[in-house]
Formats: sequence, structure tokens, C-alpha cells
Amino acid sequence: MQIAIGLYPEFTSLDAMGPYQVLQHLPNVDLVLCAEKKGLLPDDIGLLNIDIRHTFDEVPRPDILVPGGTITRTLAVAGNPVVEWIRAAHPHTTWTTSVCTGSLLLGAAGLLDGRPATTHWCAYEELASFGATPTEQRVVTHGKVMTGAGVSAGIDMALTLVAEISSPEVAMAIQLGIEYDPQPPFDAGAPSKAPRAIVEMLIGRPDLVRPT
Amino acid sequence: MQIAIGLYPEFTSLDAMGPYQVLQHLPNVDLVLCAEKKGLLPDDIGLLNIDIRHTFDEVPRPDILVPGGTITRTLAVAGNPVVEWIRAAHPHTTWTTSVCTGSLLLGAAGLLDGRPATTHWCAYEELASFGATPTEQRVVTHGKVMTGAGVSAGIDMALTLVAEISSPEVAMAIQLGIEYDPQPPFDAGAPSKAPRAIVEMLIGRPDLVRPT
Repeated sequence: MQIAIGLYPEFTSLDAMGPYQVLQHLPNVDLVLCAEKKGLLPDDIGLLNIDIRHTFDEVPRPDILVPGGTITRTLAVAGNPVVEWIRAAHPHTTWTTSVCTGSLLLGAAGLLDGRPATTHWCAYEELASFGATPTEQRVVTHGKVMTGAGVSAGIDMALTLVAEISSPEVAMAIQLGIEYDPQPPFDAGAPSKAPRAIVEMLIGRPDLVRPT
Repeated sequence: MQIAIGLYPEFTSLDAMGPYQVLQHLPNVDLVLCAEKKGLLPDDIGLLNIDIRHTFDEVPRPDILVPGGTITRTLAVAGNPVVEWIRAAHPHTTWTTSVCTGSLLLGAAGLLDGRPATTHWCAYEELASFGATPTEQRVVTHGKVMTGAGVSAGIDMALTLVAEISSPEVAMAIQLGIEYDPQPPFDAGAPSKAPRAIVEMLIGRPDLVRPT
């Protein structure tokens, strides 16, 4: 099995790097980082620059994982290279998956119409515009499409994916290997849990959390 | 404040990228990815190659964060560039921090002698060899030295660090921004929680989890 993490300029680093860490030790999986063009690809703050060695054209029949980014609403239109790559590959995948606002790209590729899916908590409206039913869960599986919530949810999504692709035992071994025994110092990771003032501050900071 | 994530060939990606995601939106912080040399730097599986734009020499007075990697025991010796960078910078830092086996590098720089610290659960013995007292906690703070447990613990460590550097409110805002409301599908992220057979399998797979 080949799993391709499909990247584009201004992707959000942890959206991609959480699943990348989880999936890299999966037995019998060829993990690939790909994008429209080879060469250096910047993340959404321009500080992390990854050397891309495979183009979408070179990876036409993968299982798919797409991260999100603040740019995704702009990219989520027919004709965009990452959207067309998803559209062409999806009929042949075993799994098509996304993290955060990556689900908007799946939506633009026509994969989510009439289906439940999730995304970053700030992007439910945009997700619904593709006909999806935004679902407030950490990971949403519908048929072969698996979507994860915002940014850090990619770790939970990837472990869920490993359990499906391989086995729960392999998922647990990977979880133990990356010592994923999360103990956040605060309980503020969802809008329903964070202090109201902090939720409102973030909604007022589109550069931080909203697809623009 | 300048926070430098000090990298080296064969670092573990999520060790660095978890804190990178958390710290990048911290107000008034200049975040830098640096290494011994400029140019492409491979992670421990050689698939992620980051373009390094700052050398250790160019970042002599930062606050420090070092990730771990399966290579760290080899690197954790006096004279190694990352160790000597830590040794020279540490007297001037506000915080000196590590994730996973990055604490072995702090140990080799002489920072942990007689102090409590943590590391990946497989590396307690190596940590003790530097005079540290291995402490089974997600994040250990002793004076200005903060160490995090294995790989994914860098997210918890970085949020703890943000609360110290900035405020709990800013840490909660960042946590909500990255939707860090972890819900792992299994409860197997620590040796005390995972099935015994899985713990034993991992101990028998040094390429996965042990510094070699």
C-alpha cells in the first residue's frame, strides 16, 4: 500500500506531521510526501520548508491523506491541482482521508456531498457548503472516507486509520512508540471546553484559525 | 525572545513539529529552526527533508528546544556540535528544554547532573548515565530546564512552556487553535497502560523506540 500525504504551499505543519509520524512505521506501507511540483514547499508561516521529491503526477494511485491550512478555502475549487489529484485518485483508493480543513479539499473534489464529515471547529460552515454534514467528532468515518478535526486531531485520525488498515495491536504499538499518552496542561482544546473569552478571541483572529 | 529548535540529522519529526506548531503563534517570539549547517536536513527515516536556513553559530543566544531521535545516544557526547551549542547557550537562556531523547543532549551538555528530568520511556537508563534522576512524568520542570517525555509529549511540554513564558490564557488560546482535545482511539500510550505483549514487542524493536 502506498499512502501519499498531499501537500501544497501554506499547509499547516502539524496537520501533516502528526499522521506522518504515526504512519511511518506501518508495516508494508510506502509513505510519500508529494505536491504539485518538486522542490522546496513552505508551510503556512513560511518557516518550515520541506524538500518535495514526488509530484502528484508521479503518485497517481495512492491512498490519500491531505492536511489543512489557512489557505484551504482558496484552494478548495475545481481545477486546483491538489483537488484534481484527489478527484482522479479517489475512485481507486482504499482510504481517502483528511485532517483539519483538508476536508474542504475533499469537498471540492466532490467526495462529501450528502455525507457526514469533520474539519477544524471554525470551518463547519465552509464544509457544509460542499453538501457535507459537519459532525462534531474527533474522527468521522463514512465508507472509505475518514476526516479528522483540527490540526492535532491528525494523530488520533492516523491511529484510527492504522487500526483499520493493519490492526488495533499495531496501532497500540505505534501509540506506545510515540508515547502518545496525552496530558494537556489545560482542558481548552474544544470550543465547548475553553473559556468563552478565549473562543471569542480566536474567532476574531482569522489568521490563526479560519480558512481565509 | 528568540526560541531556537536545534536540529541535527536523524531527528524525530514530531519531537520537533509538535512544539513548532504550538510555539509559532506565541506573541513577540522569534522562532528559528537551526542546525550545524545550512541546507537540507533529513529526519530519522530520511523522508522528511527540511531546508535549514540558520546555523547554530548564527543563533548563539536563544532559548533552546531540542528534539530527540534514535540517534541521540550517539550524539550525546562532548564535542558534538548540538551539545556544544547547548552548553554555550544555556548560561544565557531563560528556558532550556527538550523533547524525548533530546534530554540526553542536555545531559551530555552537563545540564542534568543531580536533577530530575524525563525522556522517552525506553531511555531512562541512558538519562541516568548523565547523573539525572529519570522521572516518569509527561513534563518535568526543574529551575529553567524543562524536559518532556517521548515524541508526542512535546505538544504538552510546549503548552506548559507557553503558560510560563506568556500566560495560561495564551496557552489555552493556542490549544484551542490547534484543537488539541486529544481522544486517542486506544489507551496504550505508556508502558503501564499498553498490553504487556506490545510493550515487550517494542523493547525488542530498537529501531522503533530506543536510542541506538
